[in-house]
Amino acid sequence: MKRPFEAKCIDLSTAGIRVVIINREDAHDLDLKAMDRVALTLDGGKPLSCIVDLTDTFVSPGTLGLFREIYDPLNIRTGDRVYIEPMGKPDSVMYIKKKMDGGRHTPEEIDAIIGDLMKEELSDVELTAWISSVYIRGLDKDETIALTKSIVGSGTTLALHEKRIFDKHCIGGVAGNRTTMLVVPIIAATGMTMPKTSSRAITSPAGTADTMEVLAPVTLNKDDIEAVVNRVGACIVWGGAVNLAAADDKLIRLRHPLSLDPRGMLLASIMAKKKAVGATDVIIDIPVGKGAKIKTTNDATMLAKQFNALGASLGMNIHSLLTNGEHPIGLAVGPTMEARETLRILSNENVSPELIEKSAQLAGVLLEIGGKAPVGKGRDAAMRILHSGKANEKFRQIVEHQGGDSEIRADDVPIGEHQHTVTADASGRIEYIDNRGISAVVRNAGAPADKVAGMYLHAEEGDRIRKGQPLFTIYAKSERKIDQALEAYEKRRPIRMAKIILKTLS
Amino acid sequence: MKRPFEAKCIDLSTAGIRVVIINREDAHDLDLKAMDRVALTLDGGKPLSCIVDLTDTFVSPGTLGLFREIYDPLNIRTGDRVYIEPMGKPDSVMYIKKKMDGGRHTPEEIDAIIGDLMKEELSDVELTAWISSVYIRGLDKDETIALTKSIVGSGTTLALHEKRIFDKHCIGGVAGNRTTMLVVPIIAATGMTMPKTSSRAITSPAGTADTMEVLAPVTLNKDDIEAVVNRVGACIVWGGAVNLAAADDKLIRLRHPLSLDPRGMLLASIMAKKKAVGATDVIIDIPVGKGAKIKTTNDATMLAKQFNALGASLGMNIHSLLTNGEHPIGLAVGPTMEARETLRILSNENVSPELIEKSAQLAGVLLEIGGKAPVGKGRDAAMRILHSGKANEKFRQIVEHQGGDSEIRADDVPIGEHQHTVTADASGRIEYIDNRGISAVVRNAGAPADKVAGMYLHAEEGDRIRKGQPLFTIYAKSERKIDQALEAYEKRRPIRMAKIILKTLS
Repeated sequence: MKRPFEAKCIDLSTAGIRVVIINREDAHDLDLKAMDRVALTLDGGKPLSCIVDLTDTFVSPGTLGLFREIYDPLNIRTGDRVYIEPMGKPDSVMYIKKKMDGGRHTPEEIDAIIGDLMKEELSDVELTAWISSVYIRGLDKDETIALTKSIVGSGTTLALHEKRIFDKHCIGGVAGNRTTMLVVPIIAATGMTMPKTSSRAITSPAGTADTMEVLAPVTLNKDDIEAVVNRVGACIVWGGAVNLAAADDKLIRLRHPLSLDPRGMLLASIMAKKKAVGATDVIIDIPVGKGAKIKTTNDATMLAKQFNALGASLGMNIHSLLTNGEHPIGLAVGPTMEARETLRILSNENVSPELIEKSAQLAGVLLEIGGKAPVGKGRDAAMRILHSGKANEKFRQIVEHQGGDSEIRADDVPIGEHQHTVTADASGRIEYIDNRGISAVVRNAGAPADKVAGMYLHAEEGDRIRKGQPLFTIYAKSERKIDQALEAYEKRRPIRMAKIILKTLS
Repeated sequence: MKRPFEAKCIDLSTAGIRVVIINREDAHDLDLKAMDRVALTLDGGKPLSCIVDLTDTFVSPGTLGLFREIYDPLNIRTGDRVYIEPMGKPDSVMYIKKKMDGGRHTPEEIDAIIGDLMKEELSDVELTAWISSVYIRGLDKDETIALTKSIVGSGTTLALHEKRIFDKHCIGGVAGNRTTMLVVPIIAATGMTMPKTSSRAITSPAGTADTMEVLAPVTLNKDDIEAVVNRVGACIVWGGAVNLAAADDKLIRLRHPLSLDPRGMLLASIMAKKKAVGATDVIIDIPVGKGAKIKTTNDATMLAKQFNALGASLGMNIHSLLTNGEHPIGLAVGPTMEARETLRILSNENVSPELIEKSAQLAGVLLEIGGKAPVGKGRDAAMRILHSGKANEKFRQIVEHQGGDSEIRADDVPIGEHQHTVTADASGRIEYIDNRGISAVVRNAGAPADKVAGMYLHAEEGDRIRKGQPLFTIYAKSERKIDQALEAYEKRRPIRMAKIILKTLS
């Protein structure tokens, strides 16, 4: 039975979820509890499912509070007569309960959950219960395949001219690891196609999208990306702007508060984004080490196998590479610092040698897969392309077509006006540089929100240092931010030295 | 670092949780994500922790949206200058993650979670993750004991004169099972103390609190309850009004959407309420059968053992009784119908014989425990007290002291003006009456919200019925409600007959 109410529109949005506020007395009459569902209709219109929230005071009996997610699409104004009718839960709630109870999802069940998620039919509580269950119970291979396909179906997919599409992904966690901006132009310089979508930083001081944004716009839509890639063979854009895995973005909002990274969801999230750009051949960089996300070679090998198997099921060739993730790769950390370093390397300046070496090795694998270099010769071929200036030329084409200044030089890129150099307080050998600690310092300097915040390391792991020699310089837009970064440095002490004099007895 | 904002007060409450709305640009600058925490201060005041929600439009940069949970206690007005500072998560979030990962909670961890729940420091997403983990991972005996103690600590506890306090609990699910309103006066008539707190209906057509409310107020506070019990030895009140297990009520709101009843939480919830009234001796009625909550004797035995063990750990004597929960116990269903039936039974009218028998048996166990009847003679002693009129007298004292009319007679209790009697459409024996089906019919007639909605069964399971003989009468406050109930009846057909002619071939 439908029941009439007077609408009260509240100029507030509720994170996508459609919530109606009903007085506790009306709820009692209608036998509704908080988080129950109702079908809401305007005269003669199509019913819209909404989730109930209760109030004692905000709306009086007979009045229904509506948020923007509801009154906007239905064009309801305060004072309008609307109707609600209690309704059952969608089937997907039953499937969530099934996973809680240890059941295995069919592909149809996963489609129903992702479909209802996209239609905003599921509440945060229901979705959190699902994410928690998936975290605890896990997803097997078939469930992961189904989830990947559902996520691909929830978002945009690219339509490119080339049949063979190359891609790379890094599961992250290593400071200064800006290989993408070197690998993409090396590969594309040979005529291979590489439509690279990257993320912004979540826990690090800079994501590839943040760094590229220093040099060119990265929030391109589907049509723009297709145009750029069809023209110059590659792009380096922010994936978030093109909605490649729409369902995934919605899940991440709820995974964040408890840092829940259920393995099946992590795999599906990454592979869906690759599938959505039409990738046929993908290398996956898995940094391993105590400062990285994956701590042991065993764990990394298991993850690599899961990536490869999932890729095969989805018709993609996956090459997972375990890489050394113990310490920062590049010497520059932070969006503008890394953008400068990229331009320097492309111009053949001899900086961040380890970043150059890693980029050449990753690009080398892709060149071998793409038939552009004989097996075992990929790294050298990549290095030649870099040194020839062809990668630089290709990178500047990409920058130009994305709308940036193709003539920009490293020194043109602004960096933090306030700077502070920390020197070694003892002589010795640098034994260990802790990625996470470096990230914490640079984030405290203001990155990634302040693009000009960053750090330049003057020494690498293994270097011998004398007391008073510079260790690193911090850049920030204010003295306060410098102080904050130094405070984080003192707390974390991410650069550890193997001291020569261990103890002095006197 | 604190950052100043202009407050914008939104006249809306957010289910207890303290939420601040911040513009996405400010959030980016402060490196805040949705559901992160901030400390909010008014000039010089104590910081209040709040959970962040993001908006693109509702508040502009520099403005902070505040809901009633925040601006009311801090006395903030729109336009006031307030400060926020990002803050970490409480330790309890780490403990929740530990349970997700299969860990075992220490008592301190459970105290921290329940404490933060009570202080509204945990978001719905975090609490749902905890409930889901407890549902999947379980709580062992020590964790359940700790949870029970934490829940007791979160609410009100009664202080009564008597040292020995008796109580009963039914885990529910059986229609017309209104034993409490008979057991309490029988017990209290012997001088035993029984401060009975009951719940309102959740899925049934009437809870004891709903039924008692027909005859007397049931929303008494701690002082009133203590006064009534110290005076007449017993009460029958709504537990929800006195906040005996405050934390539990908050958890139930989140358990409802997925009907999550983690065993450990169920046990802790029930036992905390008994402990909070100071109970020393408790009988627990566990109805078993396909129409009840617990389907098999094995499951019921396991649950009984868990109750007994938990009780022992908390210093209570628990007597768990497995009872027949296959079919409705009383003939009257719905608040006013059951209230009438109670008054009739107390006045020695011969109605609902099975309800009388079950009440006498339950009361008998308590009389034996309390030393008021020799072992094996409790049931007969209870029956004698009922027949003597002493239980009636005690019941009317309770009604009077709770503020009701002690002279009320069954026929004075109003029932639904609209009535409809359903007759048997074939002759035969009533093979099965389905509890859940009967509940559905009576709820569709309007119970428990409409107190006058109900049903009276004219026949019990096993009775032989002739075609055309009345099966039951429905009562409701409108013809529309009668129709709705009949619709539910046709759909569920809860009264199943073993027909004599199984099939006609012609």
